[in-house]
Amino acid sequence: MIKMKVIVDAMGGDNAPLEILKGARKAADKFKVKILLAGKGETIRKCAEENNISLSDMEILEAESEISMCDDPKCILREKKDSSMAVAFSALAEGKGDAVVSAGSTGAVVMGATFIVKRIKGIKRPAIASIMPSYTEPFMVMDIGANIECHKENLIQFAQMSDIYMKNIIGFKNPTVALANIGAEPTKGPEVLQETYKALSEMKELNFIGNIEPRDIPFGKANCVVCNGFTGNTILKMYEGVASALMKKVKGVFTKNIVSKIGYLLVKGGVKELKDSMDYKEFGGAPLLGVRKPVIKAHGSSDERAIFNAVRQAIECYKADVCGQIAKLTEKEKEEE
Amino acid sequence: MIKMKVIVDAMGGDNAPLEILKGARKAADKFKVKILLAGKGETIRKCAEENNISLSDMEILEAESEISMCDDPKCILREKKDSSMAVAFSALAEGKGDAVVSAGSTGAVVMGATFIVKRIKGIKRPAIASIMPSYTEPFMVMDIGANIECHKENLIQFAQMSDIYMKNIIGFKNPTVALANIGAEPTKGPEVLQETYKALSEMKELNFIGNIEPRDIPFGKANCVVCNGFTGNTILKMYEGVASALMKKVKGVFTKNIVSKIGYLLVKGGVKELKDSMDYKEFGGAPLLGVRKPVIKAHGSSDERAIFNAVRQAIECYKADVCGQIAKLTEKEKEEE
Repeated sequence: MIKMKVIVDAMGGDNAPLEILKGARKAADKFKVKILLAGKGETIRKCAEENNISLSDMEILEAESEISMCDDPKCILREKKDSSMAVAFSALAEGKGDAVVSAGSTGAVVMGATFIVKRIKGIKRPAIASIMPSYTEPFMVMDIGANIECHKENLIQFAQMSDIYMKNIIGFKNPTVALANIGAEPTKGPEVLQETYKALSEMKELNFIGNIEPRDIPFGKANCVVCNGFTGNTILKMYEGVASALMKKVKGVFTKNIVSKIGYLLVKGGVKELKDSMDYKEFGGAPLLGVRKPVIKAHGSSDERAIFNAVRQAIECYKADVCGQIAKLTEKEKEEE
Repeated sequence: MIKMKVIVDAMGGDNAPLEILKGARKAADKFKVKILLAGKGETIRKCAEENNISLSDMEILEAESEISMCDDPKCILREKKDSSMAVAFSALAEGKGDAVVSAGSTGAVVMGATFIVKRIKGIKRPAIASIMPSYTEPFMVMDIGANIECHKENLIQFAQMSDIYMKNIIGFKNPTVALANIGAEPTKGPEVLQETYKALSEMKELNFIGNIEPRDIPFGKANCVVCNGFTGNTILKMYEGVASALMKKVKGVFTKNIVSKIGYLLVKGGVKELKDSMDYKEFGGAPLLGVRKPVIKAHGSSDERAIFNAVRQAIECYKADVCGQIAKLTEKEKEEE
């Protein structure tokens, strides 16, 4: 048993609390960690009872309200200080647990983690990263939405934090880092990218390979794709959208008539493998990097498996001390100054 | 026969001059238009002769040099005033022809069209648009790279120009217009998008449907997707990249073993239809809207068919007087003021 407590926001996401409880239960059994569930005790217990989910070894962190997708993210610091998400982050800040998993509103997760759990000293802006499958190896996009616009300093830190995550959690020895830009040449794109390009080129500790054009991203030509949150969100959502539209078309090919249906039977295994190879749920949720403790934002539509994987990811971040390693980045910089 | 002359940059693109000449020949035969070929006469004639392409009814606009992909786009106005592209644009500006098609460097096309052919009065920034297939209907993304950053006024004009193009060339009666943004709500994204959202909402002449999240773009949820050139380029290249990576995976499914190969034979027709339905070459090239005469930027890798379609598109723009209609936009605005 890992001596670790994972705080799970039981009320966040489209399928809360049922799928959250199921995923948390599965993770507790598999990884032998203690789970703290933030939410309204009565609702949680009722849902668990009705669905035969044992809460015997779990603890409930009582929270009166919950944050909805329509709420202003700032509410987590004000009107909704008593929400399941706010209670989860406060417990993390106070050391009652070691990591938070939430499938609630992204904006509120960023706000809560940044101002309740707080930033790592020296990290100017925490950011959300997404790990996605490519034609070859998985890659990370950072930021995917916490910071719409970014300065050079932010992008450099995103590169450093991505590098640490991909090394420690995904297992790359020397992950390649690239800037998402509309051309390969260092002089392409807005000034902030040109300046960041120059700065990253001079950082010997990173395996910086220059700009990556979005066309090459799905082929895995860089392990860490660095960009502001607007660009990252566009990359992520285009990935999802094109893949989903295309898979729908592929499905159409197979269901067209009786002959094509027979054809499908012959390639069924391969199609399933193809689907699985594109399944980003397998990588867990999106880590919010740059805050003092591990925070994993699970997809809003998370089901049992997504929550299970997000808890696993939180455990891995804790065990590899990702936050500690990020903290060392800026300590080193201070020494060098 | 349409009384129209299309100027074709014979030296632009990866497959120049051969594929350009083949496409131009095919278009001349099919549409009965006069083609003016800009380039080095000797090279053009030699290539035509070797490949049995008749130039009998075509005219050559003699050009000493050519612009390569490595050249600084500004060279079209300076060192490479004698390039095939510069000669093409000068001939267009002087009225020797009615439209230009070039598969050469995008930057040089934008620079040349803007400063040699010149902007339509009142249009602050010309932009390049791409027409792409979606799960349902084709859609336009504008800008895809001419303007990295944009003001509200630019984005509004992109919306208006897209609307005119989609009505007149693609045949939509009342095309839907949306802003590419990372959330549906009017308060999402950078300030410039929030302001543009507000302005577009008040323009009754446009069928503005609000923000479109990139995930919905491949499903054709908006006919005109408006954004700055950085975002548009990212959308376009992610579309190409994901589709290409996925089709490669689909191919892998079918070529896995003898059984899957038999499966392929049973769905072959459907797979071909699927590929065709995603083929953006069918729509021709990317129109540069906002300059005084029709300019079509064909893909750098254009083959005969792409050039043929780009010439067809130039003819359609000329016949529908797309430039004249764009000019009326700002005339109307002046009257209203």
